[in-house]
Amino acid sequence: MGFDLISINGKLYKPEEAKISVLDRGFLFGDAVYEVTRSYGRILFQLEPHIERLYKSAEGISMDLGLSQDEALNEIYRIYKLSNKDDRYVRVQVTRGEGPIGMATNLAEKPNWVIYVKDVDLVSDEQYKNGTSIVTTDRLRNAKKALDPNIKSGNYLNNVLAFREATTQKASEAIMVDRRGNCTEGTTSNIFRVKDGIVQTTPFEGDILVGITRAIVFDIAKKNRIPIEEKFFTPKELENSDEVFITSSTREVLPVSSVNGRKIKVGPITSKLGELYKEAIKVYCEEAKSRHPWS
Amino acid sequence: MGFDLISINGKLYKPEEAKISVLDRGFLFGDAVYEVTRSYGRILFQLEPHIERLYKSAEGISMDLGLSQDEALNEIYRIYKLSNKDDRYVRVQVTRGEGPIGMATNLAEKPNWVIYVKDVDLVSDEQYKNGTSIVTTDRLRNAKKALDPNIKSGNYLNNVLAFREATTQKASEAIMVDRRGNCTEGTTSNIFRVKDGIVQTTPFEGDILVGITRAIVFDIAKKNRIPIEEKFFTPKELENSDEVFITSSTREVLPVSSVNGRKIKVGPITSKLGELYKEAIKVYCEEAKSRHPWS
Repeated sequence: MGFDLISINGKLYKPEEAKISVLDRGFLFGDAVYEVTRSYGRILFQLEPHIERLYKSAEGISMDLGLSQDEALNEIYRIYKLSNKDDRYVRVQVTRGEGPIGMATNLAEKPNWVIYVKDVDLVSDEQYKNGTSIVTTDRLRNAKKALDPNIKSGNYLNNVLAFREATTQKASEAIMVDRRGNCTEGTTSNIFRVKDGIVQTTPFEGDILVGITRAIVFDIAKKNRIPIEEKFFTPKELENSDEVFITSSTREVLPVSSVNGRKIKVGPITSKLGELYKEAIKVYCEEAKSRHPWS
Repeated sequence: MGFDLISINGKLYKPEEAKISVLDRGFLFGDAVYEVTRSYGRILFQLEPHIERLYKSAEGISMDLGLSQDEALNEIYRIYKLSNKDDRYVRVQVTRGEGPIGMATNLAEKPNWVIYVKDVDLVSDEQYKNGTSIVTTDRLRNAKKALDPNIKSGNYLNNVLAFREATTQKASEAIMVDRRGNCTEGTTSNIFRVKDGIVQTTPFEGDILVGITRAIVFDIAKKNRIPIEEKFFTPKELENSDEVFITSSTREVLPVSSVNGRKIKVGPITSKLGELYKEAIKVYCEEAKSRHPWS
C-alpha cells in the first residue's frame, strides 16, 4: 500500500501493526475528524490551513483535540520528518477516543491521533492534459442541518456510496446534489464550471466542504483578473458548461473532459488556472522552506 | 466497562487488547454495518430478525458480508455461548475490511467481523414506572436519499450530535426531524405517541430505521385490538399527545414523562403495551429454548 509510516498517539507502527481499539468511537460511530494534505518535495503544502480546518471540524462536533494547533503542527512535522521521501500523502485522523459504547460523547476519555504517511497517488500528465470523466448523481449530499459537509468527519458513507455510482459508470468522480437539485461537490473534490468566461462554483452556503484548493483557486483567479463567483448550478447546467474542472489537495486543478458522458473540451481558463496553481505551489514551497524545520 | 468478550473474526480478545487496523474502512469512513440485541436469561432475543436486518443494511451499501446468514448466526451463538452470564448486550459490527485509503469499495479485501458481549445497561423500574424526559431537536435526521437511516451503519455522528442536545437539556433522548418538520426517530429509538386512543408512529417512508421493537409493538397492538397507525406528527403535536413512549431493543417500551419540558402522563395504553411486550419476550424465550443450542 506504499505506507512509510503510521503513528498512533506519537508511537510509530508498521502499517500491518498499526491498530486501534474496537471501542474507539471513530470505529464505532465515525466519531472522528480528519485532514489530508500532500508534500511537494519535502514541503508539506498548506499544512497550516488544513490543521486550522481540522480544529474547526472538531469544534463542529464539540470534540476536544487535546493538543494546541501548534503542538499538532509540531507533532505532524516530527512524524513527517521520519519519512525521507519526496511527494508524500499525509492523513491526520483524530477520534474522540475510547470508552463504553454509547451515544454520549463524554464516554470517551481522550482523543486518539493517527498520522498516516504514504505515496501520493499522482494524477497522470495525460489526465491533466486530456481531462477526466465525471458524473452527477441523484444522491443528496448530507444536508448542513443534518451533518454539515464542512465538518470533515469520519462519516464518509454518503461519499463512498456516491463514488460507487461513478465507478459503475467508469467515471473518476461523482457530483452529489442538494434537495433543490443543485450540484454540491464531488466525493473528495469541489466542482467548478466556466460559462461565458466566468468561473463558477457552489457557494459556501451550499452543502459542501469549503476546500483549501478551492480557496487558492479563488485567490489566484482574483489576482489574475479571471472572473470568478460563487453560484449554484444544476447537473444540466454543468453538462452545458464551456469548461469544467474539479479541485482537491491531491488532484490540484483537474480538467473534466466529460459530464454524464457528454463531452466537454479542456479549455483555456482551466489550463490557465492549472498553471497558476502550479506556480502558487512553487511560491508556497519557496516561502515555507524557512518555516519547515526539516527542509 | 463490563465486557465479557470481544471477538474479531472469530478470535477472542480481552477488551483492552481487541484492536483493529487503522486502515480498516470502518475506522476511516464508518464503512460498516452493525446490530445490537440483548439476551433475557440466556436467550438472545430476536437475534434472527436483527441478523436479517444486518444483511439488509449491508445490501444497502453493497457490502458482501462474506458469511451466509446461517453461518453468521452460528458464529454469534458460538461466541455468545462462551459468556456464562444472563442478560447480555450483544453488538455485531461488520466493516468492509482493510485496504489502501480511498473511496472505492473494491479497495477492501474482506470484511472484519467484531462481536461484543457485555452487560445490558438496564432501564430502572423507576424509569419504566415514571417515564423518561425527551426533547425534540431542529437537527435533521439524515435524508433517505443521502444516507438511508434504515441502513444501520457506522455513520452515527448525526445521532451523536443530536444526543448531545438531549444531554445539555438533561433529557435521555433527542428526536430528530425531517425537512418538512415532522418527527423522525430518536438517536437509538423509535418514537410513538397516543392521541385520542390511537397509537401513532413515524411511517416507514420517513427518515427512520424500521425498528425490530417497533415491529413487535405493531404486532402486539394489532393482536390486542389497540388501534395503531403509521402517521407523521410534528414536535408540537408530540408535545400535545395524551401519551408518548420510545422503543428500542435495550429499552423495550419506555414511557416518556416530558417532551421539551412539557409534562406527559404515563398512560394506560403505554403501560398495557409495556406489559404485552414483556409477555412477548417470555413467549419468544420459551419458544426459542429448543432452537438455541446453548440454553
